[in-house]
Amino acid sequence: MKFKQVVLASRPDGAASLSNFSVVDSEIRALAASEVLIKVSHFSLDPYMRGRMDDSKSYATPVPIGGVMEGEGVGTIVESRDPRFNVGDTVKGRTGWTQYSILNGDSLLNISETHAKSTTALGVLGMPGFTGWFGLNHFGRPKKGETLVVGAASGPVGSMVGQLAGQYGLKAIGIAGSDKKCALVKSDFGFNECLNHRSFSSAKDLRSSLNSVATDGVDIYFENVGGLVLNSVLPLMNDFGRIPVCGTIAWYDQKQSEDNIDLSKVWRSILVKRLSINGFIILNHWDLYPKFLSEVGPLVNNEKIKYVEDIVDGIENAPSAFLGLLEGKNLGKLLIRVN
Amino acid sequence: MKFKQVVLASRPDGAASLSNFSVVDSEIRALAASEVLIKVSHFSLDPYMRGRMDDSKSYATPVPIGGVMEGEGVGTIVESRDPRFNVGDTVKGRTGWTQYSILNGDSLLNISETHAKSTTALGVLGMPGFTGWFGLNHFGRPKKGETLVVGAASGPVGSMVGQLAGQYGLKAIGIAGSDKKCALVKSDFGFNECLNHRSFSSAKDLRSSLNSVATDGVDIYFENVGGLVLNSVLPLMNDFGRIPVCGTIAWYDQKQSEDNIDLSKVWRSILVKRLSINGFIILNHWDLYPKFLSEVGPLVNNEKIKYVEDIVDGIENAPSAFLGLLEGKNLGKLLIRVN
Repeated sequence: MKFKQVVLASRPDGAASLSNFSVVDSEIRALAASEVLIKVSHFSLDPYMRGRMDDSKSYATPVPIGGVMEGEGVGTIVESRDPRFNVGDTVKGRTGWTQYSILNGDSLLNISETHAKSTTALGVLGMPGFTGWFGLNHFGRPKKGETLVVGAASGPVGSMVGQLAGQYGLKAIGIAGSDKKCALVKSDFGFNECLNHRSFSSAKDLRSSLNSVATDGVDIYFENVGGLVLNSVLPLMNDFGRIPVCGTIAWYDQKQSEDNIDLSKVWRSILVKRLSINGFIILNHWDLYPKFLSEVGPLVNNEKIKYVEDIVDGIENAPSAFLGLLEGKNLGKLLIRVN
Repeated sequence: MKFKQVVLASRPDGAASLSNFSVVDSEIRALAASEVLIKVSHFSLDPYMRGRMDDSKSYATPVPIGGVMEGEGVGTIVESRDPRFNVGDTVKGRTGWTQYSILNGDSLLNISETHAKSTTALGVLGMPGFTGWFGLNHFGRPKKGETLVVGAASGPVGSMVGQLAGQYGLKAIGIAGSDKKCALVKSDFGFNECLNHRSFSSAKDLRSSLNSVATDGVDIYFENVGGLVLNSVLPLMNDFGRIPVCGTIAWYDQKQSEDNIDLSKVWRSILVKRLSINGFIILNHWDLYPKFLSEVGPLVNNEKIKYVEDIVDGIENAPSAFLGLLEGKNLGKLLIRVN
């Protein structure tokens, strides 16, 4: 039986483009022992995938040219040679951008019981939501009454961070890429404030507006964007401020902010303000995933934590949807519904 | 009775110079309740004092124009209106650059019993040594077999960091500003390696030599210099590396490295390598000073931890000695012996 997959056709030189991808037909092979065949219903598109397209040294091996684009998906088991999984089980795994995926049972999470709606395992109750929860709690060390700033606030990481901050009694200020996103951030996700970074021409201008809403300074800057937003927020950090760093999407295409803060000033701020800056990659922390699920799962079920999904139909539309994601065109967690 | 003090005559514009200081005569006033009069025997000169000369926002109030230059000193009590202190006691306190100092007893440490040699309270068993011990242990989180790099390795902070690292079973690589300092760092302080940063013309060259001695990469970079050294070390950091930041002396005169690493690259390294960067100021951590003394005091007594003092005679020589310190001309902990 034939099925479709999206492979990396070439590496981007600067910004990624449609020509870097191609949709190819593949043939399903026989299962080895411990393997299962999954019919993918949805797969996730996330900013980190841009990094996998480059061959620079990173925390993960790059996708090889001709290799299937990597990522998480959910689907149903249609054939199983792992006794722990039955045909009909709903699972989450690193399927990649594909209609069918063969994976070893060890790498799979059975979500039939834990996730009432399977796509939440890719967003609010999956890697992005877990990233927000872990980074905020472990490195952000939030305290009631403090002020938090997070970029990409309408996305699945940012919206988790801001909503949790609200739950914990912090003032949450979001930064997002359109007025529509900002409206969502305030109405659905309950942030106290949201600024549209595209309405500012420089870091200085954005900083000035941020300064007028972050009246007590910034205690936690949850970093998932870098660039203009970082340059705006850094000088507003309070003493003993914390900056968990889980992404720098603004720089993924190697574009520079024109008003970059000099390293000497950054380093001086780290010292004088006694900042704590910690980079993390959620893959190193899966041991805490059950704790996250037990704490945040109920909040999602009773709608104390909300989420928005942006679902695009058809695997052949994954490349353009992904490029749109890098430009901030999606609204909420971007998913491909496999046809 | 008249005595001499060094006051801030003017604020530096760029590099500090002799004209920023003047030596003035003062008159001893009568003591208020709880005050003591100290005849200062030695006071300390430390890089952080450069920051106090500027009026930029910092963690401490700047020295006012005409104010006595701040800093720690040791001496003998010659008059006391605090019942906890007797004439003849040896004490350490924030005397400033002066021959006599009147201080409130609350701000004083009686070192008659704890410090066999009083000047160690200004160096190896004082603020600099404590800074090295605290930063290395609390934010550096050293593990046997790891590699540590520290700048200003012959100074009182760097030499403590490297010697403790040796005690803990790490490979210690020092960076210092002359071949003479490097010789001291290896022979007296027992570092595995030392590089003279002045023998390299660029961060790239220094990095290349560092790379050849830090064969397993760098796990801890104890930051007390910034500039060229920071730019050299950053790309050599291992995954999960730690960077405690307690000073950036290379930038105190606002000079820039010519081969500064771009902020986007730094931020990407923090993320990809999952670095932990923590600024700290030892004044916030005095509660741990007794623990430091009980742990490191015995190591100093039995010469497992060594120290070198660079003693300059005469209060009138303090300004030139301080300028020399900023240029790295001293060898070991710089002290003024008050005449």
